[in-house]
Amino acid sequence: MTKTRRALLTGASGFVGSHLVGSLRRAGWIVAAVARPGSARVLGANRRVDKIFSYTGKTQQVCAAVEEFRPEVVFHLASLFLAQHRIEDVEPLIQGNVLFGAQLLEGMRQAGATRLVNAGTSWQNHAGAGYEPLNLYAATKQAFEDIMQYYVAVAGLKCTTLRLFDSYGPGDTRKKLVSAMLDCLRTGETLEMSPGNQVIDLAHVDDVCRAFRHAGNMMMAQEKPGSSVYAASGGQRMSVREVAATLEKAAGRKISIKFGARTYREREAMVPWEGEPLPGWKPRITLIDGFRRLVAEERA
Amino acid sequence: MTKTRRALLTGASGFVGSHLVGSLRRAGWIVAAVARPGSARVLGANRRVDKIFSYTGKTQQVCAAVEEFRPEVVFHLASLFLAQHRIEDVEPLIQGNVLFGAQLLEGMRQAGATRLVNAGTSWQNHAGAGYEPLNLYAATKQAFEDIMQYYVAVAGLKCTTLRLFDSYGPGDTRKKLVSAMLDCLRTGETLEMSPGNQVIDLAHVDDVCRAFRHAGNMMMAQEKPGSSVYAASGGQRMSVREVAATLEKAAGRKISIKFGARTYREREAMVPWEGEPLPGWKPRITLIDGFRRLVAEERA
Repeated sequence: MTKTRRALLTGASGFVGSHLVGSLRRAGWIVAAVARPGSARVLGANRRVDKIFSYTGKTQQVCAAVEEFRPEVVFHLASLFLAQHRIEDVEPLIQGNVLFGAQLLEGMRQAGATRLVNAGTSWQNHAGAGYEPLNLYAATKQAFEDIMQYYVAVAGLKCTTLRLFDSYGPGDTRKKLVSAMLDCLRTGETLEMSPGNQVIDLAHVDDVCRAFRHAGNMMMAQEKPGSSVYAASGGQRMSVREVAATLEKAAGRKISIKFGARTYREREAMVPWEGEPLPGWKPRITLIDGFRRLVAEERA
Repeated sequence: MTKTRRALLTGASGFVGSHLVGSLRRAGWIVAAVARPGSARVLGANRRVDKIFSYTGKTQQVCAAVEEFRPEVVFHLASLFLAQHRIEDVEPLIQGNVLFGAQLLEGMRQAGATRLVNAGTSWQNHAGAGYEPLNLYAATKQAFEDIMQYYVAVAGLKCTTLRLFDSYGPGDTRKKLVSAMLDCLRTGETLEMSPGNQVIDLAHVDDVCRAFRHAGNMMMAQEKPGSSVYAASGGQRMSVREVAATLEKAAGRKISIKFGARTYREREAMVPWEGEPLPGWKPRITLIDGFRRLVAEERA
């Protein structure tokens, strides 16, 4: 008989987070979430998690949540994602991606919780192996990791950061590439895009969730404090044009896309980062299979 | 004839900041400060700076200040310093040391200001050459540098970070080592201390100010964007016990100090970091000379 494990999540109402809640619960974990009041209401209405802790910005709330729930593993997925920021986004980016995470780490230290799986972004490594942030969002993710380094030293934390690439799957409301193309398939509208030669790395959300669970299990087995960074690659890199062709193949018909109607972003990632893969984990869902499932789910 | 240069300071009412304001103005710079309302009142009452911009937390205020003043060099010295933090300090540490700095960088980007001299701490390098924060304060300083890296890339900034060690000089109200010993000299009270074998690196505030001005001039001469990190060492490392003996020598009498009455801090820095020195700058004031000046100023 294995002991029931307790996971505390942030970002539980987001795309990957909500899938991870289901994935952990199906694997027998008890799952709690620290969430802002709005997200807490959604999570509560759907009875998606076993316990909800409301967060309105105070460090003490996060400390109390970790203290009460006593998680074996904390999964920190909450983040404010912005590909490009405006002046008024600076404050929410720091609050959401640095302050909230620091409060979570302080809560872990106070409660003696030592295992953390953290969601990073491949955009922290824009131009190669070293730190080079693509955007302010990626810089705030790096800033959080540097705060984390202090807690690893003083609170004996065991941390894994999974640097994520792009993801897709059912229930994606993020208006990113794949869901935008699915919308066009449904409505027949035309999608205006960049020239589309940038290579992207797409992982199915089920594979991403398995990576998080795997990293959580790794942290359960790790004896010494320390932090590691791994890439959670979908395993099949292709250009945006090839992704569109793959989705057309899965759907059995053309999508109306105008490549070149827009320019590339100012700092477009043309080739994704090559990071050290998460040991013991491999994506299982090929892009054509994932897209076939997605098209079937759309029709159902 | 040299053109008048414009310096925008943060932390202008702090110990090093207030000396730097005087140092820059004596060297012919026009000096403005971005300051919280309390500090702004102090700076205004003493007519210490040429222009004051009030800051109550908003990004737009900082952007407007940089836009209006159009500084040749920004000197970012503001920071919340805490050797050890409590739960309630997490938020002010992130706000003061990460958010405010990020707002300043955004303001520089918006206004096209490109030269920054930033105050870091040797505590970012606790255990050697790499990043290893002594405390949360040092981790927030590193987090700011991560954010800065993004602005170097997108806004073409030229940045120098001076990692500071300990400093001393007239008007120091920070209750740190040297001023605490001076207080005991004056009052005859006994100072209870740790065993005192930790080596420290003390620089006279005039030397520190020359380092900042020198770094500012370096940024004026630098053509390409990029950021560098240098150590601003006082040049004479000695144990706390030796520092006390040096001050006794300068004062011509004993200070009542009980070494070993306290334990070392949990993460005491026993030996300071050895960083790359700021090129073209050397401290000029030896510890015995600096202490003699300090004792004379105390008596006057």
